[in-house]
This record gives sequence, C-alpha cells and structure tokens, in this order.
Amino acid sequence: MTGIVYEQVMPHLVVKPHQVNDAIAFYQKAFGAEEVKRQTVKKQHPTGADKSVQHAHLRFGHAEVLLVEETEELGSSVHNASSLHGTPVILHINTSDVDAAFKQAVEAGAKVSEKVADQSWGQRYGKVIDPYGFVWSLATPIHGHSHTA
Amino acid sequence: MTGIVYEQVMPHLVVKPHQVNDAIAFYQKAFGAEEVKRQTVKKQHPTGADKSVQHAHLRFGHAEVLLVEETEELGSSVHNASSLHGTPVILHINTSDVDAAFKQAVEAGAKVSEKVADQSWGQRYGKVIDPYGFVWSLATPIHGHSHTA
Repeated sequence: MTGIVYEQVMPHLVVKPHQVNDAIAFYQKAFGAEEVKRQTVKKQHPTGADKSVQHAHLRFGHAEVLLVEETEELGSSVHNASSLHGTPVILHINTSDVDAAFKQAVEAGAKVSEKVADQSWGQRYGKVIDPYGFVWSLATPIHGHSHTA
Repeated sequence: MTGIVYEQVMPHLVVKPHQVNDAIAFYQKAFGAEEVKRQTVKKQHPTGADKSVQHAHLRFGHAEVLLVEETEELGSSVHNASSLHGTPVILHINTSDVDAAFKQAVEAGAKVSEKVADQSWGQRYGKVIDPYGFVWSLATPIHGHSHTA
C-alpha cells in the first residue's frame, strides 16, 4: 500500500483551562502515572491577554497520554469531556491485575461505570469514568481461556 | 508505587450502529489500515430482538484501534462522536511522512481541521476530522530541530 510508517496512537486528553495540574495529581494516584514533561505553551490573545495553556505528557507502564488544556485553536470539534457530557473514545488498557488497577482508580476518585467481571470474550474487564469525563476500560485476560471466542 | 503493569492505550472508537463496515473501508483508505479481526458480538434484547453489534480491530503500522458500534451497554457517558458533536480525545500519531499521511487521509474523505505546517515545538503537524467525527493529529519531527523547546 503506502510506505508511510505510523507510530502508536497517543491519545491527547482535552481538559478545561487551568485543569492540567489537578489532572496530573489524579492520574498519579489512579494509575501511578509519572510526569514525563510538563510544558507551558505560551499564547497571547490579539488583545494582549495571556492565553497560555499547560500540556503534560504522562506515562504509566507502556501507556502514554498527553493532557491538553482546551483552547479555541483545537478546533470547533474538540472540547473537554465535561462540556460534551460524554466521550466517543473508550481508553482501553490491558493490565496485569485488573482488580487492583480498578480498585486503585476508584479509590483515587474515578466512578464505577461497569464493575469488574469475567466476560464471555475471555477477559476480566471493568470500566470507570474519571473526574474529567474520560472513560477507561481495564482488562486482564482470564487465565486458560482459549482465544478463539 | 504499585506492581500493576499497564500495556499501551488502545482507543476504542464508538461509531453508530451498523457503521463498522463502512468505517473499516474508510480507515483502510485513509491510513492503509488492516483488519486484524472483525467480530459480531451477539446480544439479545429481553424482547427477543437481535441487538448484535460489530467490533473491528484495526492496525496500521504500530497504531491499533478497536471500532465499536454504540449500544446502551457502553454506559450513559459513551456515545458516537457525531451525536456528541465533538470529541475530548485527539488521536495523535507520529508518522514518517506527515504530508503524505495527511494527503491520503483527506483524499479518503477526512476534512481538514488544521493544515500541515511547521510548528514551534519542532514538528510538522496537522489535524483532520474523519467522517465518524474523530479528530486525528498527524506529525513528523522537523529534521535537525533541537528537542529542548
């Protein structure tokens, strides 16, 4: 087909203005995330007002996301999840221990969307909604399950 | 911190019912995606009606996504992007040739959100909106740019 090389998808999660610092603290507790880089993107409104925003690159295990504060420059289709009252993207992560990962996220303040349970497709799986409106599904393969489902 | 191992985030992209087959065809053209697995998840409504939905696992290079048709079981916070009129997640992918990747996505039917241009942070970068409402940012590092920005 094409010779273009695509790297893995790195979700950029859009939060409200001035919310990145709180969000970093949440993801540290919820997933043990480490802050790879925090950056202030300097922007000035034509009126001279400071419209700078914070970005933060987080990593937990092999998972990486960028937190981005909402600005008009992101385009008319991009808004924070709280304002949209929902999300069309479930952030799915396979983990070594879904029960522990789920418990840790809920203790940090995530809401239970779907309790962890064994699923017919061969995973223990559950879903949480975080305080910024993002939905995360966490899963672990059920040992001994054939993958032919 | 914790001993939990997290694998990379695999975004699950929620489309309307009966839309997965069209979406597969679009992502094949737009990104050269290959279909790893297509699956019908059988579900029956209490009334006996067939509520089965299609899932499709797509891969292009190192990027992987799962397409999922919307059902109530996804929870009240999860809806397709067209119904939400937006998304809080930008699907970011570094590529070997952002200009070629962008052109191919637009020729397949994606709309230009932000034209490809050299950015102050050291990338050539642009954004498109696909026919299902998802926003993709595509980027390539600018050769010789120092990464100290």
